[in-house]
Amino acid sequence: MSKIQETIKNIKPIDESFYEKAQKRLDNLTKPQGSLGRLEEFARRIAAITENLNPVINKKVIFTFAGDHGVVEEGVSAFPKEVTPQMVLNFLRGGAGINVLARHAGCEVKVVDIGVDYDFGKVDGLIQKKVIRGTKNIRRTSAMTRQDAEKCIEVGIDLADEYAKKGYHIFGTGEMGIANTTPSSAIIAVFSGRPVEDVTGKGTGIGDAVFQNKVTVIEDAILKNKPNPKDPIDVLAKLGGAEIAGICGLVLGAAKNKIPVVVDGFISTAGALIAYELEHKVKDYMFAAHNSVEKGHKVMLERIGLRPFVDLDLRLGEGTGAAIGISLIEAGVKIYKEMATFNDAGVSESIEKAVTS
Amino acid sequence: MSKIQETIKNIKPIDESFYEKAQKRLDNLTKPQGSLGRLEEFARRIAAITENLNPVINKKVIFTFAGDHGVVEEGVSAFPKEVTPQMVLNFLRGGAGINVLARHAGCEVKVVDIGVDYDFGKVDGLIQKKVIRGTKNIRRTSAMTRQDAEKCIEVGIDLADEYAKKGYHIFGTGEMGIANTTPSSAIIAVFSGRPVEDVTGKGTGIGDAVFQNKVTVIEDAILKNKPNPKDPIDVLAKLGGAEIAGICGLVLGAAKNKIPVVVDGFISTAGALIAYELEHKVKDYMFAAHNSVEKGHKVMLERIGLRPFVDLDLRLGEGTGAAIGISLIEAGVKIYKEMATFNDAGVSESIEKAVTS
Repeated sequence: MSKIQETIKNIKPIDESFYEKAQKRLDNLTKPQGSLGRLEEFARRIAAITENLNPVINKKVIFTFAGDHGVVEEGVSAFPKEVTPQMVLNFLRGGAGINVLARHAGCEVKVVDIGVDYDFGKVDGLIQKKVIRGTKNIRRTSAMTRQDAEKCIEVGIDLADEYAKKGYHIFGTGEMGIANTTPSSAIIAVFSGRPVEDVTGKGTGIGDAVFQNKVTVIEDAILKNKPNPKDPIDVLAKLGGAEIAGICGLVLGAAKNKIPVVVDGFISTAGALIAYELEHKVKDYMFAAHNSVEKGHKVMLERIGLRPFVDLDLRLGEGTGAAIGISLIEAGVKIYKEMATFNDAGVSESIEKAVTS
Repeated sequence: MSKIQETIKNIKPIDESFYEKAQKRLDNLTKPQGSLGRLEEFARRIAAITENLNPVINKKVIFTFAGDHGVVEEGVSAFPKEVTPQMVLNFLRGGAGINVLARHAGCEVKVVDIGVDYDFGKVDGLIQKKVIRGTKNIRRTSAMTRQDAEKCIEVGIDLADEYAKKGYHIFGTGEMGIANTTPSSAIIAVFSGRPVEDVTGKGTGIGDAVFQNKVTVIEDAILKNKPNPKDPIDVLAKLGGAEIAGICGLVLGAAKNKIPVVVDGFISTAGALIAYELEHKVKDYMFAAHNSVEKGHKVMLERIGLRPFVDLDLRLGEGTGAAIGISLIEAGVKIYKEMATFNDAGVSESIEKAVTS
């Protein structure tokens, strides 16, 4: 059995009895029942995912996978592909958006070269797992071979296994790759059957003419490659993204290891969607952090059945939304663990009155 | 001139030139322009409010004002009024929701007795500024005298002055007061002219029959007291809330001292709304943190022109949404201050290419 098949086989359904047990404690805290809304949901879900009624979220890590995209030569992005390695180096120096927001949330950032078309040589802090030097131009051919797509997924699975073993409590996903909204839109167009225009946005900031071109390029890529939506790895290999594949693997590995995984924006959700199409059970281990400006994001989240909770008009990627999401999920767990119960606070008599009045 | 009039006179319009100057730096950071959405807005606004292009958010404090409401005797709440002092004591012991979320955000919590119908005696940590022992039942009479309403507003102004002098950088608002969604709905009904039913929710969790009664009570209170929407202090005095008045004063004082103030949910926004009706310029100093479940909240925010950014289905109050909001605003300021510029990161050449391609 391949590593991917084995991982999928080992993803277990959530033990739903933990929801109820955790809610019992939440209902005993000094607040009206349910009044902390989704913070309570986060606590319940973390308890169920980790099968622990006293869950801990201390060691937090975001994986930012980087890869290049041959389709950039079709003029779909506002930025040239040299920016991918430059931003990787910026991540390693701590100067990017993800570094600032991860520090704010007390998260580590691990930067993974899974498909950048650049030779970094030896560079401190970079996790070097390059499978390809960028995808091919999907308007003309398949992004990568099926074997390479599987290798990229395995990189994500291996990282999940490694960091689970190291005792991390929560993962976040992130990515960097000039032009990678293009494959992401292509992927959701194929799975949803929606017109490309409905699931395509303006990425990092392209004008109307470039947008029209981007839509045409994606339509051509789908026509040319004929990805089979019943075969998620076929869709991934043909439309690509080494970083999207890495995220898919990380999500599968997180679910297998019973580790909650917070999915960033549009591109990350493309990776999470491939994982979901491979095995629906991963959904219960995932959290969608924020509402991206990219309109295809909403279609993805509806398909998976996840509801985001931060509305900051972000469209940067890198894992920035995941960092914010992780901090709020941690807040939910702290509510669960640190609030006084009615008994502790001597508010019990009033409650009795309230219930009987 | 009264303290309130003097405070209002000293609220200056924002110096909008700071928006542009701050945006210039934001546009120079290693990210596509505008891609951090509202985090960038927060940084711009904090720079403009504090008139400082290198703003600091270290000392953070949330004021949780507590007061009782005579209207509780009409059966509008799921909880008896004894819960107000019990929760005050819970705040002081650090066991409530606001304590947990404020700690998570690195905020202090100051608990203010402004109108609780209970004698706390000497108790460590409580800011004792009691003006009234609860409001009167607004279905029968005015909540309080105009003089008492003004005194409550002055308590908030004084706290803003004091904590501005102590060097705090940002304020949050919070409240505790059994039955205080009732005056809050009444206040927005009067200012908006909307039917009471459209701006009334189920508070901490009442059933349908109690809800219908609550609507009737509010309608009666408005008919009985005839508050004048052109005279915001008249509305405040007649429909009440000592804690709502304190929050109004805190917002006025924050604006005068050029200190950003993050407004929590429905009841806090009722206080902020009174401040806004007194002086529209306060709007530029305020941030709305979250979307409350209470449906009148949206009507208030639209009236003021504020857009919240957290969607967690909270309906607890206390300042819990403000704590989360403060953390995200701080994240925006860190983005502004800590991210590398294109020059720092050596990404400039690519950008030149991007701009000219």
